[in-house]
Amino acid sequence: MSRSAPHSAPARPIITLTTDFGLEDWYVATMKAVLLARCPDAHLVDVTHRVPHGDILCASISLERAIDGFPPGTVHLAVVDPGVGSARRLLIAQINEQSLVCPDNGLITWAFRRHTGGRVWELTWRPQRFSSTFHGRDIMAPAAAMLACGSQPEELGPPIDNPVLLDVAPAAPGATSGQIIHCDRFGNATANVPAAVIEENPHAQVQAGSENLGRLKRTYVEAAPGEALALIGSSGLLEIAVRDGSAVERLGLRVGDPIRWG
Amino acid sequence: MSRSAPHSAPARPIITLTTDFGLEDWYVATMKAVLLARCPDAHLVDVTHRVPHGDILCASISLERAIDGFPPGTVHLAVVDPGVGSARRLLIAQINEQSLVCPDNGLITWAFRRHTGGRVWELTWRPQRFSSTFHGRDIMAPAAAMLACGSQPEELGPPIDNPVLLDVAPAAPGATSGQIIHCDRFGNATANVPAAVIEENPHAQVQAGSENLGRLKRTYVEAAPGEALALIGSSGLLEIAVRDGSAVERLGLRVGDPIRWG
Amino acid sequence: MSRSAPHSAPARPIITLTTDFGLEDWYVATMKAVLLARCPDAHLVDVTHRVPHGDILCASISLERAIDGFPPGTVHLAVVDPGVGSARRLLIAQINEQSLVCPDNGLITWAFRRHTGGRVWELTWRPQRFSSTFHGRDIMAPAAAMLACGSQPEELGPPIDNPVLLDVAPAAPGATSGQIIHCDRFGNATANVPAAVIEENPHAQVQAGSENLGRLKRTYVEAAPGEALALIGSSGLLEIAVRDGSAVERLGLRVGDPIRWG
Repeated sequence: MSRSAPHSAPARPIITLTTDFGLEDWYVATMKAVLLARCPDAHLVDVTHRVPHGDILCASISLERAIDGFPPGTVHLAVVDPGVGSARRLLIAQINEQSLVCPDNGLITWAFRRHTGGRVWELTWRPQRFSSTFHGRDIMAPAAAMLACGSQPEELGPPIDNPVLLDVAPAAPGATSGQIIHCDRFGNATANVPAAVIEENPHAQVQAGSENLGRLKRTYVEAAPGEALALIGSSGLLEIAVRDGSAVERLGLRVGDPIRWG
Repeated sequence: MSRSAPHSAPARPIITLTTDFGLEDWYVATMKAVLLARCPDAHLVDVTHRVPHGDILCASISLERAIDGFPPGTVHLAVVDPGVGSARRLLIAQINEQSLVCPDNGLITWAFRRHTGGRVWELTWRPQRFSSTFHGRDIMAPAAAMLACGSQPEELGPPIDNPVLLDVAPAAPGATSGQIIHCDRFGNATANVPAAVIEENPHAQVQAGSENLGRLKRTYVEAAPGEALALIGSSGLLEIAVRDGSAVERLGLRVGDPIRWG
Repeated sequence: MSRSAPHSAPARPIITLTTDFGLEDWYVATMKAVLLARCPDAHLVDVTHRVPHGDILCASISLERAIDGFPPGTVHLAVVDPGVGSARRLLIAQINEQSLVCPDNGLITWAFRRHTGGRVWELTWRPQRFSSTFHGRDIMAPAAAMLACGSQPEELGPPIDNPVLLDVAPAAPGATSGQIIHCDRFGNATANVPAAVIEENPHAQVQAGSENLGRLKRTYVEAAPGEALALIGSSGLLEIAVRDGSAVERLGLRVGDPIRWG
């Protein structure tokens, strides 16, 4: 590798991975084998492989966080693919100056809806041989590697304008309710409510389940230990938390539950 | 491997890791510290660290998948080593144009038997000082790094022809039965039956436990949701699955269980 | 670091990560996004993200192992930060020719006490905008990346001499008792007792709970299967283990339990 003084070389491509494959088996590694065979200089970064089996909404939320955080040019490979072997399409998308390769089953929803200007292609490229059970390894990983090494989406398939989208979107200005879209491993529950929407009303009291959480707090430590609170989380969305505890357990929150304010 | 101009440097060495160390502790990281200290430009790729404690067959299956998938020149470090501190030997192997470093306890079995032409050396190289409880870090990781950076097996020990092999092998042509060798986190059960062996009889009905699964299907979605099926999995081996479910749970399959067809 | 011709480029910076974020969510990935955006050539190595939620001692032990094992110049980013948003300080430390970025809540304790000559700075650098709930991503990751890319601690904050330290230290010469400081996933229990301290008395019998484990053994296989033993573990500390079993389960050991010898 030729690199000049000390880190001024062109940035190495970054490819992230989001799957429901778990960490017990070799499935993630065999996708990485394909990525490195075709794009040997890439940085590979795991977003998560512990998406619950087949949970497309959960993967979609994680994926948006990656697309929000990584530098321009990053390629995101997301494989939660219960429909493998069916007629479901595969997608390439460009969102937030980054690329995404995934099945067309709703995985792109949250990134596509939270970032404007996304463009989508059907990934119709196929290798000469591929299995009928692991398109992540055989089709999507090669495509992600090609994009990371400089291919354009147009070389891999035609543009489309009708990707499958889940029935979830950011709450719109003026809304007074939303819903939980993700619960993290700390027991924090994130709602589909951008900071700007709820902050329209600086006196709003937030209601989750039967509990009034009062006004937005700025940080966890403004609540007493064990107390539930509402705040803007690190995703820029309304978050329900319990200081030093779990809002999921304490308030019984689940994905899809309503959150109200006013 | 297609590589374009911005990334046309000689490929960086790849070292994979397969262990039963889990992800709670620092053991994997301390092996990676050794690998990067000795081979600073290496790509490190985890195959899995969640092999059940001491489960050599499970690790052997995962390892073969890595050796099948990664590019020539990759070095695989596999440490499931309940015999550390005993007189058990350490091995270097070359299989499928790749290198492997592991204890001589059967870990190489599945890769050695599924790929022809494997060669084996005893790893007799030792550093000046090493612990008596963590040869993965102190002996095998340095050896893997040396191989990744260009050392030859002959520099690290003498050739041998009697590695320890587990009592498991691919079903031979003409066979009409095999056994489950791995159950993955989705509940799919893989048998020691290469596609070519079972596809000799295109009308074969597959029997797992007391259940007749009918002929091989091509993909999961050819079964009804919740239905059990037999197909060729992404490893090129006979796999028993349940669409949108777990064959392990539904059929009570376990490693070692017989599978029959005819 | 010995490196041969094919990979003789200047070493790439190494940044390790130790957190209690778990692997289910995107939090680790969003820190890595920041690290790679600012230091695109870095090697990123996970120490562990499975520190029990808020367990500062556990993280401190893991971190010391990383600081002991990685090459000079490595930067360690450790985020177990229940006090985020409070007035707790952030730290930079230089220990064992490596750098550490973490909250000032005791995380540095074990590395600071096991390695002499550590120096500490308060990390007062702040980006123009940062969240009030995720300083790992917004402040500590950028600081770690800057250090990895050549910044000096002095550029990021003033030196201090009073970091928060937990009430745990290596047993001193002449001691005849210590305590369990970590239990690993194999069920091995590590005590705060350096090899040199317990080896002062070559005839010492080790007592854990109500059990006399006899003299130190050299390796696990000197015990019978299922037998408890004391030995010097791979950390260079007294370890209580059960061959092919779990000392935690068999002897009921927990962090904080006393160990005696004489």
